[in-house]
Parts: sequence; C-alpha cells; structure tokens
Amino acid sequence: MTAARSRKARRTVKTELIERLAAIVGDKGLILDRADMLAYLEEPRGLYHGAARCVVRPSTVDETAAVIRLCNDYRVAVVPQGGNTGLVGGQTPDESGEQVLLSLQRMNAIREIDVGSDTMTVEAGVTLARAQDAAASVDRYFPLSYASEGSATIGGALSTNAGGIHVLAYGSAGDFALGIEVALADGRILSGLSKLRKDNTGYHLTRLFIGAEGTLGVVTAATLKLFPSPRAHATAFVALDDPEKALEFLHLAKRELGPSLHAFELIPRIGVDLVLRSGVGARAPFSDHHPWHVLLETSVFDGTPPEETMFAMLSKALESGLARDAAVAASLDQRAAFWRIRELLPEAQKHEGGSIKHDVSLPLQKIPQFLAEAAAGVECCIPGARPVPFGHLGDGNIHYNVTQPPGADRDAFLSRRAELNEAVHAIVLLHGGSISAEHGVGRLKRELLEQVKDPVSLGVMRSIKSVLDPNFIMNPGKVLTAR
Amino acid sequence: MTAARSRKARRTVKTELIERLAAIVGDKGLILDRADMLAYLEEPRGLYHGAARCVVRPSTVDETAAVIRLCNDYRVAVVPQGGNTGLVGGQTPDESGEQVLLSLQRMNAIREIDVGSDTMTVEAGVTLARAQDAAASVDRYFPLSYASEGSATIGGALSTNAGGIHVLAYGSAGDFALGIEVALADGRILSGLSKLRKDNTGYHLTRLFIGAEGTLGVVTAATLKLFPSPRAHATAFVALDDPEKALEFLHLAKRELGPSLHAFELIPRIGVDLVLRSGVGARAPFSDHHPWHVLLETSVFDGTPPEETMFAMLSKALESGLARDAAVAASLDQRAAFWRIRELLPEAQKHEGGSIKHDVSLPLQKIPQFLAEAAAGVECCIPGARPVPFGHLGDGNIHYNVTQPPGADRDAFLSRRAELNEAVHAIVLLHGGSISAEHGVGRLKRELLEQVKDPVSLGVMRSIKSVLDPNFIMNPGKVLTAR
Repeated sequence: MTAARSRKARRTVKTELIERLAAIVGDKGLILDRADMLAYLEEPRGLYHGAARCVVRPSTVDETAAVIRLCNDYRVAVVPQGGNTGLVGGQTPDESGEQVLLSLQRMNAIREIDVGSDTMTVEAGVTLARAQDAAASVDRYFPLSYASEGSATIGGALSTNAGGIHVLAYGSAGDFALGIEVALADGRILSGLSKLRKDNTGYHLTRLFIGAEGTLGVVTAATLKLFPSPRAHATAFVALDDPEKALEFLHLAKRELGPSLHAFELIPRIGVDLVLRSGVGARAPFSDHHPWHVLLETSVFDGTPPEETMFAMLSKALESGLARDAAVAASLDQRAAFWRIRELLPEAQKHEGGSIKHDVSLPLQKIPQFLAEAAAGVECCIPGARPVPFGHLGDGNIHYNVTQPPGADRDAFLSRRAELNEAVHAIVLLHGGSISAEHGVGRLKRELLEQVKDPVSLGVMRSIKSVLDPNFIMNPGKVLTAR
Repeated sequence: MTAARSRKARRTVKTELIERLAAIVGDKGLILDRADMLAYLEEPRGLYHGAARCVVRPSTVDETAAVIRLCNDYRVAVVPQGGNTGLVGGQTPDESGEQVLLSLQRMNAIREIDVGSDTMTVEAGVTLARAQDAAASVDRYFPLSYASEGSATIGGALSTNAGGIHVLAYGSAGDFALGIEVALADGRILSGLSKLRKDNTGYHLTRLFIGAEGTLGVVTAATLKLFPSPRAHATAFVALDDPEKALEFLHLAKRELGPSLHAFELIPRIGVDLVLRSGVGARAPFSDHHPWHVLLETSVFDGTPPEETMFAMLSKALESGLARDAAVAASLDQRAAFWRIRELLPEAQKHEGGSIKHDVSLPLQKIPQFLAEAAAGVECCIPGARPVPFGHLGDGNIHYNVTQPPGADRDAFLSRRAELNEAVHAIVLLHGGSISAEHGVGRLKRELLEQVKDPVSLGVMRSIKSVLDPNFIMNPGKVLTAR
C-alpha cells in the first residue's frame, strides 16, 4: 500500500467510527464542530488545551457502554468528563485530536430517592447542587460540598474521590457511594448499584473505580447515602497565635464537640487580608489583627440552643490561652459572612497576581512543622513570595497556595512553578504526606506520582489497569503514564 | 519414573519446603505436630475440619512475605488466619493436608500510637480488645467492637471487613484503615501504611485488600483512625409493636440524635424470652411483655446531661404511638444489663437446640417486609421453627437465626439447613439484599456467591485475582470457587 492509499484508509476508518458513534447516540449526542467542542477542551486553570476527534454525549448507560465498546474495537482513546471542573487536567484530552471526549452531562436523571432507606440513586451527570437539593426536598441531607458544586457532577466527584468542606464528619465522595454502575473498557456494564450499608460479598469493586479518574471504566450512576438534616448550626471564627495552637484547638474541639464537628478550616491572616482588600464586600471578623484563624462549624440535631456547646468549648479555649479571640455567628447572615471569607479566598488571590498552588495532606501532628518549613522553603526559593496556606485542617489537608511577591512580574513568577512545587512537595513527602489530597493526579501529577509512590503500589495499579483496560483506551495518560 | 520413585520425589520436595520454612521463621514459628495444630484447624461453628501441612507463625512482615514467596515458588496454597473467630470458614484450610496455615498471631506489635495525628499503627495479630485498650490509654476511642473481640485480630477484621455494634456511627473495619501493609502472593510487600485522612494519589488499593479474605494478599499491619472518647452514653431499651414501627423509630432517632446515635439493635420478644429463660442472670427490661424491642445508644461529648436528649426523643416516640414503652439506663450497671440481653442472645439460642443462621442485609425500607415474608417462608419450610431475627437494624443488617421447633430432633432440623437457607436468601435477594452483610463469604457461601452475584462483578473479581495471584495460592477456594 502506498502512503497516499494508507492515509485514505485511515480517513475512511475515522469516518466510519464517527458514523457508528452517531448511530449510537444520535445527532443530539454528537458534537463535531470545533467551536462547539471548545467548552469541553479547556480546563478551569487553563493549564491544558486539548483537542478531540468529537464529543460524544450519550444519554443512557447502554449508549455509554456501546460508545466505549466501539472505541475499544477501534483502539481509540476515551476521555470521560463530568462538569469539567477538575483541577489536574484529568478530564481534558491530549493535543493529538485523536481522542474521543465522552461527556456524561446528558446522563442526568435522578433515578430514585428512597427516603425510607436513606438513599438516592442518581446518574453521573447530576450536579452536586442538584443532588443536594433533591435530598433537601425529602428532608434529608447530602453533605458533599465544594466551590464548584453548581457545575461539578456526581460522576466526576466519585471518579476523583472529591473532598470539600464536610469531609471531617462525613468523608470524601467515595464514602457516600453505597454502590455504583460502571461502563467497563470492553463495553460490559458492571451493575453494582446497591442500597446496602453492609455487604461483604466479595471484593470492594465500588471503591476501586472511585478515584480511578476514569482510567478503569466510567461511573454512570451511583446510589448515595442520605443523612438526617441538621436542625441548626453553630459557626465560629476563632483567632489564634500559630498553627501549633490551631492543632491543639482542633483536638479540643473534637473532644468537646464529637461527631457534630463537621468543618474546621484554617485561614492565615494574609488570607483574611486579601479577601478584605479585594473589595468583594466581606466583613472583618475581628477589629484586631491576628496571625491565624480557624473557621469551625457544628451541626445540631436536637432541640438544644445550637450555640450552647460551642460557647462552652470556646470558653475553655480562651481561658487556657489556646485562642486569642472568638466570635460565634448570631444569625444566618453572620454565618454566611464568616463562610464568605473562606470561600472568596482563592478568588481574592487572583487580585494579587500569579499564584502557584499545592493540594497536600499530612499527618495532623505534622501540619505546624510543615507550615514552618514550607514557608522557609518558599522564601529561600523565591524571596518575597507570599504563602497563603488555607483549608481543611481538620482533615490534615492544606491548600498550600503561594502568591507572587508584590509588584513582581507574573509570568516570571509562574515560570518557576516546577521549582517551587518540588521544594514544597519535598517537605510534604519528608513528613509522610501526600502530593494530592483531594484533587487527584490527572495529567498534572502523573510524572510526579511515578517518582513518589511506593513502587509496589504502582506495580499493582498497573497490573489492575492492564487487566481491566488491556488496550489502554480508558483516559490514557491520566494517573498513570503511558505504557 | 516409576510411581514409587515419583512418590519419593514428592516427599523430598515436601521435606525441603518444611526445612526452608523453618529457616525463615525458626523453630518457634513452625508447628508440625498434629495435636498442636488442632486449635488452628477447627472453626467456631464446627462446620469445617481442616488439615494442614504445617502451621507457620512469622513474627515480622519480612518473614511473612518470605513464607508466601516460598509457597508461591512451590505452588503450595497459603491459608492466612488471625484469631480464628471467622464464621464462614475463611480461615480454615481444606481437608487435603497440603495447604500451609499462616497464623499472624505472632505479628502482634503496636508499632506506634500517634495521638497528635489521631492514628495508631498496629500489626495484624493485635486483638481488637488490645487495640481498644491501647486507644483508651491515650484518651482516644477505637470503636470496632463485636462479640469475639477478645480473640479476633485487626488483620482478620480488616480481611473480612468485619462490622459489629458501632457501624451505624463509625463504619465497618475497612472504614478505620487509613493505610495497610500487605504481603502479596509473589512475596512483594505493599507498603501502604499512611496516617493521611485524604490521599488521592491513584487507585484505592487499601480497600481492595480489605474484605478480600486473604485471597489477594495478607494484611500484615494497618494504620487506624482514632476517635475522641465519648464522655458519657445514654442507653435505652424500647418496646414496640412491630418492625414497621421500629423502622419509623430509627428515622426519628436519626433525625433527633444525629451522628451521636451509634447503636440501634433490634431484638424480638422471643430473643428476650430466650435470654431470660437461659438462666444467665439477665434482668427483664420491662414488667410487661412486648412483641419487639430496640436497644439504642448515643455518645455524649459535651457537658450536657447525657439522658436529656434521649428523654426528649423518647417522649416524642411515646406520644406519637411509635413506642409502647421505654427505659433509659440510670446507671452503668443498668446500661450493662441492657446490653447483656443483646450480647447473650446467640448463646441463649443454644439452650433451645439447633439453630440455622443467616447474616443478611437489606435496604432499610425493606426490613419489615423481609421479616414478615421470611417468617412465613420459615413456617412453610419447617412448621414450628422459631425465627429469632435480631441485630443491627440501624445498618439494615439482620442476623436471621432460626431456632428449631421445641422438642424437635436437633440433627433432623439441622439437616434442612440448605433448604431453609435457600428460602430465606431468596427473599433477601428479591428485595435487593445481601446474603453476607458482615461475616464474609469464606468457604460457606462461595457457591452461593457464584449464583447470586452480578456476573460482570464476578468476572472483574476473577480478573483481579488472576493478575495478583496467578498461581492461585492465596487462600484458594475462599470467596471465589477454584479456577
């Protein structure tokens, strides 16, 4: 065969694949126009700009499985995508234009709410916000919550085992899934939906697909746990000297508040300052300045005044010198104002120029030491750069964001990302921490994972990948580097 | 080679294996005497009587891995065992006398308690009771608790994902493991110990080995979550008309008590009667007789009087007619007396003759219907047989035990086990339930699993088994039937 004939043969095969995909999902389910595809090819941080052969949007699990089976037959890679809110490029195809982007957004039915069993079965494309509303409509609570919840989907959340602000009491996304339905790489459908809270019949396959970022199969639906709705909340903003005291305060709060403590967020002074300075209308929680803050919240279920226990605990913290000052929200408005400071923090950083980010976790006890050493490491690496470490102290998960030195050149600062990442991650690893606490690996950290992960664990991961996706078509180049 | 020479060659290989095992674990670590082996070869229910080539008792993870590697080289099956308390024969070798029993009991170090990180790293052979005590010694709480906790080990609990009486608030064994160390079938050691509450770096391998019953590798150590110690408890015994009301009462209790509700156990009238009649000195919770009971308990962390919230909730249950009567324990002694009724129930059944048992779970909403249908099924199958369904209603997990008809022949009754199992399990499956909620599959339910499990799930399980244990040496014939 001449080169020209071979090219023509390839083109024919390509046309054939598209035709067969169209036959599965119909015209509504296929996007071929480059402009229309764009929204699926850019990820929120702008680090990756993918290309795709087409965007396929199936509306049922059978269609999804048929699409994957077909792509497997053609040895064409499939990149699954939910709400396209992931922060590590896991949902973005590579630049080749050869991959098929599989959007789960049309699989968005709430299949069943079984309030008597405290479960809800939803499809992958249902957004977190819609899942929360559906639970609330039957007087139940679905606690998975994070900034992008208006767009982020259940399928994406499960595929990345997303975290958020309620992990301390309720766990990460994977902890909500009693069972899942998965379209496998060869087109088989694993029907693992289940309303059971206990089921010891064989390997825990649900958990294998959760957090696998679509590299082993595509989560198409899940049965999720529902919880009783808290009757009220008590929310406090607390000022402290240093992270050591914040950690000690965490232990006090856990001891005194028990499992009703559902959020415990660390916020440094610079974080509060940035938010106040950004002009978004946030209010200062204290008139004085303090070096560190904690925002914490409890759920109250019985009829006792919600602030009572919180006041008692805070009194102990103040009397023992653990806390410098404390404010308890006296209204829903004040509660919202406290949370606004935490929620606007990532946005406020943008006003200060470039930011280099890390999503790390550490053993709780190591957090203060990590923060001190990382600050020194940053100063050594890029003098004047400003660490803004904030986030889920209760889970040992810090978003270690570093804002550029005031007035420095943004691009020059950002060009040193790799160097700064290495310095921060080295300290994390030294203390037994993780270089991805809740955002996943995706494309961003796949090479890093190669370097830092226990080689036997990596080997087992590759073995499992090889047997569940022998043709390496499921989101190749994410989590694991290519074969 | 003649048959005689071939037999001799096999004997030589056997001797060689034993010699090499002895070289790894030393004399203290090897049991060859049949009488000394006996304690490892009988399981608690007496359903299986295994034989073994030898019992190997390594004292380190390196020894454990070396033993497994050697057995893999010789293609000799390894049966891991913890406290030998399992109820499905998972820890018992077959009758061939060819398998090696690997006891983890000498791997019993508490490697580290990191109270600041709320974690504890223990080896597989540490008993649950010792783990609980170790946590208590640093003012923390390790909630995994069930009847055999004095002998049952952490390794066994994780390998079977054991449940117990606190699952409602704290989850099953697997939910406590932040990370595990595993000796794989080829002798590699997977070093997955971790103190991190969040770590999204690749596939969740920890969860794959948990509940795999030693068929994919041997759990040698785990890092476990510790919790704050409750300051007090409120414990109530409640009388109800029927399971429908018990379920409605569960929803009321969850709504009013929130996450502090950590136990919710169903006990039928016959259960209380059997315990009182057995002469173990239990006290009747009520002077009147009632058809059904619930034993429930909350943890209290703050300084409020522990009974206050319980009283308020119970008042609502009594006023609305959900409950017939309720008693709240006024002392630790009374609390113990309430629990004694629940704990002595399985023992009390023995006084009534033979008992055929089921460990099933169902969607919460289906429990009342299941109980009605199963009672009818039992009566139809063996008239006069007495269902004693009790257990973890809060988790949808019922121990559906059936006691023989009064005065009937014990062996004749027990000979109908398969028939009765089939009748009960058919109803469970009809309602989306599980035929093994917390005891696992082991040898007892491996054929049943074949019949009832989603075939794609079974296929994926076999794929994973084939790649992690290609020679099928890890606890063969447990969970999955032989190749």
